[in-house]
Amino acid sequence: MNITYKNLTDTAAYAELASTSPVSLTEILTPERIQSCSIPVGGNLNYNYAAMPVSKSIIDVLQALADEQQLSDKYRAILNGSIMNTGESRAVLHHLTRGKLGDEVVLDEENKREFYLEQLEAMKSFSEKIHNKVIKGSTGKPFTTVVQIGIGGSDLGPRALYLALSGITRKMSAEFISNVDPDDAAAVFKRINFEETLFIVVSKSGTTQETLTNQGLALRKMAESGIPGIIPAKHMVAVTSKTSPLAASDDFLKSFFIDDYIGGRYSSTSAVGGLILSLAFGFRTFQKVLEGAAEADRNALNPDIRKNPAMMDALIGIYLRNILGIPTTAILPYSQALSRFAAHLQQLDMESNGKRVNRFGEPLNYQTGPVIFGEPGTNGQHSFYQLLHQGTDIIPLQFVGFSSSQYEEDIVVDNSTSQEKLNANLAAQIVAFARGKNDDNPNKQFPGGRPSSLLHGKKLTPESLGALLAHFENKVMFQGFCWNVNSFDQEGVQLGKILTKQVLSGNSDAILEAYFSLLK
Amino acid sequence: MNITYKNLTDTAAYAELASTSPVSLTEILTPERIQSCSIPVGGNLNYNYAAMPVSKSIIDVLQALADEQQLSDKYRAILNGSIMNTGESRAVLHHLTRGKLGDEVVLDEENKREFYLEQLEAMKSFSEKIHNKVIKGSTGKPFTTVVQIGIGGSDLGPRALYLALSGITRKMSAEFISNVDPDDAAAVFKRINFEETLFIVVSKSGTTQETLTNQGLALRKMAESGIPGIIPAKHMVAVTSKTSPLAASDDFLKSFFIDDYIGGRYSSTSAVGGLILSLAFGFRTFQKVLEGAAEADRNALNPDIRKNPAMMDALIGIYLRNILGIPTTAILPYSQALSRFAAHLQQLDMESNGKRVNRFGEPLNYQTGPVIFGEPGTNGQHSFYQLLHQGTDIIPLQFVGFSSSQYEEDIVVDNSTSQEKLNANLAAQIVAFARGKNDDNPNKQFPGGRPSSLLHGKKLTPESLGALLAHFENKVMFQGFCWNVNSFDQEGVQLGKILTKQVLSGNSDAILEAYFSLLK
Repeated sequence: MNITYKNLTDTAAYAELASTSPVSLTEILTPERIQSCSIPVGGNLNYNYAAMPVSKSIIDVLQALADEQQLSDKYRAILNGSIMNTGESRAVLHHLTRGKLGDEVVLDEENKREFYLEQLEAMKSFSEKIHNKVIKGSTGKPFTTVVQIGIGGSDLGPRALYLALSGITRKMSAEFISNVDPDDAAAVFKRINFEETLFIVVSKSGTTQETLTNQGLALRKMAESGIPGIIPAKHMVAVTSKTSPLAASDDFLKSFFIDDYIGGRYSSTSAVGGLILSLAFGFRTFQKVLEGAAEADRNALNPDIRKNPAMMDALIGIYLRNILGIPTTAILPYSQALSRFAAHLQQLDMESNGKRVNRFGEPLNYQTGPVIFGEPGTNGQHSFYQLLHQGTDIIPLQFVGFSSSQYEEDIVVDNSTSQEKLNANLAAQIVAFARGKNDDNPNKQFPGGRPSSLLHGKKLTPESLGALLAHFENKVMFQGFCWNVNSFDQEGVQLGKILTKQVLSGNSDAILEAYFSLLK
Repeated sequence: MNITYKNLTDTAAYAELASTSPVSLTEILTPERIQSCSIPVGGNLNYNYAAMPVSKSIIDVLQALADEQQLSDKYRAILNGSIMNTGESRAVLHHLTRGKLGDEVVLDEENKREFYLEQLEAMKSFSEKIHNKVIKGSTGKPFTTVVQIGIGGSDLGPRALYLALSGITRKMSAEFISNVDPDDAAAVFKRINFEETLFIVVSKSGTTQETLTNQGLALRKMAESGIPGIIPAKHMVAVTSKTSPLAASDDFLKSFFIDDYIGGRYSSTSAVGGLILSLAFGFRTFQKVLEGAAEADRNALNPDIRKNPAMMDALIGIYLRNILGIPTTAILPYSQALSRFAAHLQQLDMESNGKRVNRFGEPLNYQTGPVIFGEPGTNGQHSFYQLLHQGTDIIPLQFVGFSSSQYEEDIVVDNSTSQEKLNANLAAQIVAFARGKNDDNPNKQFPGGRPSSLLHGKKLTPESLGALLAHFENKVMFQGFCWNVNSFDQEGVQLGKILTKQVLSGNSDAILEAYFSLLK
């Protein structure tokens, strides 16, 4: 296959898309449409786009855009190990952590799938030894708590997944320390018993300022704890690259490895997320997450957008962003377990596609990644939904919902269970946003026409969680291809690091110093 | 004083504002400007707007707009008990919960300041009795945990404040249950000991579906706990209005009262936030929050915007939203303790000013409230800052930072403490956003010109927290006056409630039913 890269606005399909007639949600939304617009994602999860303002003819043009931008071919190129992170000249291999859908990938004289499987085996074996008390703390007590020290992708994804699975019986409880604000670590230290705690220090480069600082805090705290016989290094493992300073350090009981081909925000299915999930819930649970993700990855290969949920989601997003000009998207899971999932997606999406140059470094003349925000429903209904319903801007919504709760501890109040109330609210919101309501009192009028999609499943299981994670990763990837940006680097984080070093080394200029002085 | 209400675009100042010359941040940002642009907020907190794109002449026009829209007079009208929540024909009295800056307000044959003081006294007395073990659980054990059951304003503000003060030695630990998702309550029930737990059920109307359902869950859980002699009603207090069904119920040990003049999102300084904060930290700590808020309220009275931080913040926001056309704002506290503060502000701002009709119910032809989102720094730097620096849209930023940490447990790594690193990062980010950086590689180029403000103080104390809370409440109020909307109702939440009832009672139409079926 012959892959070419062009800007969105240079495609014939885009010009066609711009000339399609907009659709009235109130008119197109029928029971038949709702029933026919669900696409299986994987892990028993489905993506439904009935309440999105796309007619059959618009979808046909979106399909033409998908074809013209060669979304499937470019995804295959990723799977086959092509250098798709052009800025950093790297392959993009996160899919390979959960299955093999393309050619063998050999890089740095290593078969990468075998490398990831090796790390999986290491996580399995280590977590079992911890659970079976073969490996214990340095004072002889079993490990009961695991604390992940990491930031960004080493924190948000793993934390969101951990919280999402907390309805499953845990083998160990988990805590997370991310912020360089010392209060973050101090609060966690107050809650844990060092003798029974295993720290996981996660940094691919082994040089992340926040993470090394918090590692130092943890080591000092243990050393100064006065616990007789405690050996801090026996309470700490690393997840890092083989070439990092951490890999060579004596500070760790053991090291697990990742490589440069897994971006931080795509690392939840590598050892970055896998070790803590295996420890907290058992390796089998993590494996189920991988299985759900692998299924979603397979479904994302279908070139027919009507059968490819991630591609459909991506293309509808392009329509909303570039044709309708909408700058934000809200993520609204009706599941308390997904309370931090929006924060993960915020990084995934905004860090991947918040770019102003294309993959060749040429400035773009159209909008790319939107602002992503969100909170679980029904909480959001009592918070910012007012603006979503009656504000002056239209915000597209991505709902997530499940038939059953996780804990299955429920109660009938006023003839319905909590779960029924939750889902009645969810259905009601979708319809209220789409159709609105007329009222003689303009203050009670709802304009409607506010688009949404719904990811729906039977229950939030490890499999459906893996599929949910992969769905959004693949959506973001496809959008990056449409926009012709490199979704896999993050040069925008560098300038802040440089200026921070200037401040800390006393080499800042007068403006930087003036700001730092305000904080002294 | 003679108050008139007009739309933003009908003011002479707005026309003038639209014709001002835009400002280059790179050019105006000097050390002198940074030093001279801080305005005291209260509680040792300051608002600095040096990195906002407003020149002296733009500020002069913003002052003219403030004068023409009579912001000070309208604020005084609120303080004096005028019916400023026009949609619901109510006074707006949250300022009165923390001090008295206007006339006596007598409503419903009651002096409202006296009523709020009475409730404060009740919280003081009750929390002291709990702490002194005069009031104990029904099985004779002291109360050690307090669980607030509430949603929206009964949850987000109190929770944000509780987390913000957790660096202070606690008298009791607190938990929150908000979501009707039964997993939310189930997770909390797993963590607590019912014998030592006091529940606070918070609902002004006493009819909030989520809250009553979760109250039912808690009562059932206690009744079914098998703990000999436990009496659920002796473990539950209410915060509600005097006329609500909860006030008349026998389910409670005691009731505390609020009234219709305190909107949910403005209720943190009433018994809604006061009871849980008094129980968790002691009444004196809550009182300090009130003192900080009261100081900010006083400073917000100054008609000179250069001396009024909330008014300046509000007017710069209007300039960004309506002249520069920017649809979002990010809240970025460099303080882990403020981890949920952005979620509170999201409700406060978006629910107050996400309106499309003016206070007379007439549709508006300009944009009102923006989308608000945010996470603490430095975490956000490793997440969505990529888009903020190098995305195609400009997002204005509201930073918050403090000289000292709360726990004061810190460590020197590479010659600097964590707190120094935190603040070096904060200073670096402000400057990076404002000035950007040229580079031959366009992928490493930072366009700059990205505006931000900084709320800065010595330490996050109860007083500075109260001032921070009130600052944003007053900012939102002033923006509502500028836009000529009623910031104190929320009709946009009603339609969802109506449709939810239709689903639950089996009276939904085919479209609603089709969506509900997807979730069965």
